[in-house]
Amino acid sequence: VVPVVGLPAIGAGDPLGRLIGDALAAAGEALDDGDVVVISQKVVSKAEGRVVDLGTVEPGERALELATRVGKDPRMVELILRESRRVVRAAPGVLIVEDASGWIAANAGIDSSNVTGDDRVALLPADADASARGIRAELRQASGASPAVVVADSFGRPWRLGQTDVAIGCAGLVPLDDWTGRRDLEGRELEATAIAIADEVASAADLVRAKSGGVPTAVVRGIGHFVTDEDGPGARVLQRPGADDLFR
Amino acid sequence: VVPVVGLPAIGAGDPLGRLIGDALAAAGEALDDGDVVVISQKVVSKAEGRVVDLGTVEPGERALELATRVGKDPRMVELILRESRRVVRAAPGVLIVEDASGWIAANAGIDSSNVTGDDRVALLPADADASARGIRAELRQASGASPAVVVADSFGRPWRLGQTDVAIGCAGLVPLDDWTGRRDLEGRELEATAIAIADEVASAADLVRAKSGGVPTAVVRGIGHFVTDEDGPGARVLQRPGADDLFR
Repeated sequence: VVPVVGLPAIGAGDPLGRLIGDALAAAGEALDDGDVVVISQKVVSKAEGRVVDLGTVEPGERALELATRVGKDPRMVELILRESRRVVRAAPGVLIVEDASGWIAANAGIDSSNVTGDDRVALLPADADASARGIRAELRQASGASPAVVVADSFGRPWRLGQTDVAIGCAGLVPLDDWTGRRDLEGRELEATAIAIADEVASAADLVRAKSGGVPTAVVRGIGHFVTDEDGPGARVLQRPGADDLFR
Repeated sequence: VVPVVGLPAIGAGDPLGRLIGDALAAAGEALDDGDVVVISQKVVSKAEGRVVDLGTVEPGERALELATRVGKDPRMVELILRESRRVVRAAPGVLIVEDASGWIAANAGIDSSNVTGDDRVALLPADADASARGIRAELRQASGASPAVVVADSFGRPWRLGQTDVAIGCAGLVPLDDWTGRRDLEGRELEATAIAIADEVASAADLVRAKSGGVPTAVVRGIGHFVTDEDGPGARVLQRPGADDLFR
């Protein structure tokens, strides 16, 4: 896992894939087809102009009511509701929703850290799988290689404290390694049904990225057997169908 | 992340820490104080004799009733109940409990894969933090170095498909990196409160371990800033207190 240093501050419209390719080239790191480039959601959102000034947000009646209940800024709650399909849990200090892309996340993944300017917050990319495909195409053009791309964000979890990085978008990576029917060394069918490779890659990359915002990108090497020519189904296949989920 | 190859089959009473030290030495990999040795729960359970023959288990009334409801082997359900504090969710094909150590896991983490013999299953270690401390002491004796130790297991999650490896025990590693009060590059307080380092380390290690049982151990390097002299609080600090959890 290699951090990508030297990336400039990212703003709306910046060609993120090309800039990452440039930073890697400047650091003497050649990209390979089996590499996985893991990129923090925040810089993807900035490049896509998904930054909102809360001063421009007028909270509606539902947001005002919910904001009182959870104790959050009504303008923030209005944004969260706009970016969501439905509220999963609301309690003092907690607002967990199913966002418009289907991810279950606190505050629809909206936050202000590492966003320049008071009252400015970053939304998740509208379609982080599409973001990953776009960045992959740019990286291919910049480097000649065709690495996989993961867009990662820090999510909290039920039952366990602390956040871990998970994949909200990917291209060219097998997101879910399905073990159904595979056997162990004893010839016994394995009980784990599938490993969430894209989430484990996101977590591995997070270990080398400084959360203070300095290093939003890392390259994960040595797992080329999970990298594919095709962009593939994206991280969306990691979403557990609602009917199959006992915790909504 | 370096896989530890050449570990022999592990049985009850085997000195796991020493055997891992031997396998590393044989592979020419010297352990360092800043290293993190990540070990699959299954071999720890085997070394601790936490393997049970289902043929010896007599299901009680509650297990028989619950087994019908979830469609599982009543002897397995009996074992799950014995290893649990309470049932969190029961549905056809699903039995999620809070186990005796406080982990919330499907089937109390009991399974049969990579266990030799029909009808034999492995329980989780009774206290995986204590296991990690014991293995750390053995590694220290075998190698002279004092690496951190993580005991990892594959857990499913709500909302997201696929399992990821998480830490159920650790020694000498900061399990939870608390960011409260830290600031981003803009001087703004960060909204992530804590990063579950031990879980991210477990996930990183899983990427190089073959789930078929051949490589139960890996060494994670380059995160010595999270390795401590003291064994520390263990993975148990990753357990979200029940009162603080909206999904039980």
